[in-house]
Amino acid sequence: MESKLNQLKETLGQAYDLSHAAGLLGWDQQTNMPSGGAEERGHQMATLARLEHQTWTAETTGRLLEDLERELLPGLDADSQDARLLRVARYGYDKRTRVPARLVADFTQLTTTASEEWVKARKASNFALFQPSLEKIFELRREYAACFAPYEHVYDPLLDDYERGMKTREVQAIFSALRPRQVDLIRAIAARPQVDNRFLRLNYPKQSQWDFGVEVITRFGYDWQRGRQDQAPHPFTEPIGIGDVRITTRFNPENLGTALFGTMHEAGHGMYEQGIDRGLQRSPLGEVGSLAVHESQSRMFENLIGRSLPFWRCFYPRLQAIYPTQLGNVDLDTFYKGINRVEPSFIRVEADEATYNLHIMLRLELEIALMEGSLAVKDLPEAWNTRMQEYLGVTPPNDAVGVLQDIHWSHGLIGYFPTYALGNLVSAQLWERMQHDLPDLEDQIEQGQFSGLLAWLREKIHRHGNQFTPQELVRNATGSSIDYQPYLRYLENKYSAIYGL
Amino acid sequence: MESKLNQLKETLGQAYDLSHAAGLLGWDQQTNMPSGGAEERGHQMATLARLEHQTWTAETTGRLLEDLERELLPGLDADSQDARLLRVARYGYDKRTRVPARLVADFTQLTTTASEEWVKARKASNFALFQPSLEKIFELRREYAACFAPYEHVYDPLLDDYERGMKTREVQAIFSALRPRQVDLIRAIAARPQVDNRFLRLNYPKQSQWDFGVEVITRFGYDWQRGRQDQAPHPFTEPIGIGDVRITTRFNPENLGTALFGTMHEAGHGMYEQGIDRGLQRSPLGEVGSLAVHESQSRMFENLIGRSLPFWRCFYPRLQAIYPTQLGNVDLDTFYKGINRVEPSFIRVEADEATYNLHIMLRLELEIALMEGSLAVKDLPEAWNTRMQEYLGVTPPNDAVGVLQDIHWSHGLIGYFPTYALGNLVSAQLWERMQHDLPDLEDQIEQGQFSGLLAWLREKIHRHGNQFTPQELVRNATGSSIDYQPYLRYLENKYSAIYGL
Repeated sequence: MESKLNQLKETLGQAYDLSHAAGLLGWDQQTNMPSGGAEERGHQMATLARLEHQTWTAETTGRLLEDLERELLPGLDADSQDARLLRVARYGYDKRTRVPARLVADFTQLTTTASEEWVKARKASNFALFQPSLEKIFELRREYAACFAPYEHVYDPLLDDYERGMKTREVQAIFSALRPRQVDLIRAIAARPQVDNRFLRLNYPKQSQWDFGVEVITRFGYDWQRGRQDQAPHPFTEPIGIGDVRITTRFNPENLGTALFGTMHEAGHGMYEQGIDRGLQRSPLGEVGSLAVHESQSRMFENLIGRSLPFWRCFYPRLQAIYPTQLGNVDLDTFYKGINRVEPSFIRVEADEATYNLHIMLRLELEIALMEGSLAVKDLPEAWNTRMQEYLGVTPPNDAVGVLQDIHWSHGLIGYFPTYALGNLVSAQLWERMQHDLPDLEDQIEQGQFSGLLAWLREKIHRHGNQFTPQELVRNATGSSIDYQPYLRYLENKYSAIYGL
Repeated sequence: MESKLNQLKETLGQAYDLSHAAGLLGWDQQTNMPSGGAEERGHQMATLARLEHQTWTAETTGRLLEDLERELLPGLDADSQDARLLRVARYGYDKRTRVPARLVADFTQLTTTASEEWVKARKASNFALFQPSLEKIFELRREYAACFAPYEHVYDPLLDDYERGMKTREVQAIFSALRPRQVDLIRAIAARPQVDNRFLRLNYPKQSQWDFGVEVITRFGYDWQRGRQDQAPHPFTEPIGIGDVRITTRFNPENLGTALFGTMHEAGHGMYEQGIDRGLQRSPLGEVGSLAVHESQSRMFENLIGRSLPFWRCFYPRLQAIYPTQLGNVDLDTFYKGINRVEPSFIRVEADEATYNLHIMLRLELEIALMEGSLAVKDLPEAWNTRMQEYLGVTPPNDAVGVLQDIHWSHGLIGYFPTYALGNLVSAQLWERMQHDLPDLEDQIEQGQFSGLLAWLREKIHRHGNQFTPQELVRNATGSSIDYQPYLRYLENKYSAIYGL
């Protein structure tokens, strides 16, 4: 049995070697690749993906897993690492084998076309051009869900792709309680005088933005021996393994916030991957299994730290010294309020902390209704606009800045959006617990000290990799399942002070 | 049969996807990878290499090849691309399958240890520390050669790994005729007053070196849409495919020559790979099959062009404008002579054009004698030093700058060295032919025009990829097999003028 377990580990090791090699190819494509490499790169990525899939789904892999489940698992402590490995390997194996190859191929082909249709539709700001593709996507996603029957809700198998074990019912319960409270908060803010943030829109040279970002994330604890930062048009974090976790950023010389908060965000993702126990490398236990928990780390560094007063008490004098012309006459209080300005808008990726979750809830509700069949794709723009007005008080003037704004659906990513909002909630839960465990947390941040905070995250979250489900991980760290109340408290406290509610 | 041919092509396509992906991982390791990535990168490279090997050597691949050789090949025109593909595929398949896995594994393990022993031995300048490893390496290389019996000469199968179809006898005939002539030339030069090159050793800031190098190779025709340049400690060219051929360079701020000629050299390699017919991508026909012909391109751009008077008539005013302090008082003639200074020295990689081949001939003769068994490894340092004195008139003061200077043998690379010298010879053969076909070649260079020259190389050499053996390729381009006389003529003409022989 020991030997079969090693065989399984070596097989999965090969799968992760391929997946990390593909990660490097993808990273390179976004950062370095000359345009002439695109065609061959496509073949290379397809070959690596195919071989990774073959490694996972080989008959020998399935047999090893069955043998080990029958002969080894019953005798293992359920909390042992080997037992966890077998559970996560089974999850990964089933995800890859339960869906017929024909459906996978059809879906790949469909989303390739759909992405092109979406680009055209968005350009023309005409949802009707994308509608047939999107109808087909939801149809095939329902077929996909059926492969994992029985389920409580047709949306469960999709959600489970990003949050192992999470149920639609749980997410709905959280969001339906949170939504009216966030809507109320935004209305209260809207009734108050707006804060100024025009100083963020001056000319900020790129190199000094890069240097300041590097200075900040180095202080956070991003490990340059096990990572690097490059520029990319759409910033992302790419683990090429636990020892090589790369982040990317982009610059807008006319907007200080773009690179600054983006860099902190990606560093949060990066430090999570860097913090996974190295003994878990080349294994399904050595990746982050939950997009929500991943996002909790990026959002924590971007928002709970990076948009906090203690952080800027430490770093603002430094930033003013770098940009005396732009910020010399902007005091700390004005700067702090400016980077926390709340303003309902059409576009999710530009949304502030107070409005962001509402963009997500809207998408989640529509995705569920479309999967259930209670909403028809053709009625989507109207449903979108109605909810925008209801939740955010604005109505998109056209589909391009409304229902067509996100790329996700065209790639077939249904069930992905809620992880963004869940990440916000988890970040605040962890923060409350951390404040309890580290009573001088704010003082430390004010002194630019992040090592205690990072050690706490390493211990409670990072090192575990994929050994726990998202709910287990959050419960182990905070004593509670995913909950909206800490985030709501955080928003209410923060904005009461800023807007004088 | 058509379908079997397509199956073979798709299989080989997969092998080349893996090999190019591995190429990117290797490139990244030398240019970008943070140190923390080394351990996992080792696993990733090993997995890609293993899967590439498995793809080539799978039973199905062998069967496809046999079927096609039996059923399709007899009916094909021997000069058709499909017939060539089958021949090159057979060559690649045999190379990978004739050697028992046990021997491959032993050799890999041996060379890993041997590389470490070599590092220690060179550091201590003590050949005895490396001797046992090197004895074992030659023993296993003889076993390797035996896998390809029958052969004319035991060195043939090693040479054939780098120069398809080339025989030891051919190389010996060329070099034994050339050697005394090059020795005579060096002696004649040594009798003349030495030229000055101290101006190359001033301070040359890195960024301006980079910019000038980029300017030069852009004029050469290096295609930035299908390549890029980065820094690496040991410069190399890496094809990630025909559409993405990357070069690297290094800088010495105290030596103008390092980056300047190194950049031209790698650009020569790079333009070759960029010039392969794109229809040959993902195929064994789409790589360069001959290290000698590859080296002929790098040497041509580095030496025949980059160290020529017409080239500097065009570019020297520009270089002087960039470095007025360093070169303002150095006239063109002095500069030209300085970059062509001949000086017998111990180290191959620092050798000038006149002495370089002698370093190679010495190694070739020793390799052959060691493979034949007519020389014992323990007697190697003495044999080395004797030949150094005989050919170059210098005796290394210690093993570190003598027999231990090159990394190649410790990696088991026997048969590789002669390709460097053959490359020099081929570069001059092509040059003579090009001068005949393009009568205004020197005028074009003097005007910084390289498009005619590059078009000629594309047509005669680059586009063909691996469709011909090295000798076929050279014969098709020049009308003659590989020959030493053009190179000798080139050296004699050049140095007669510089040293007033």
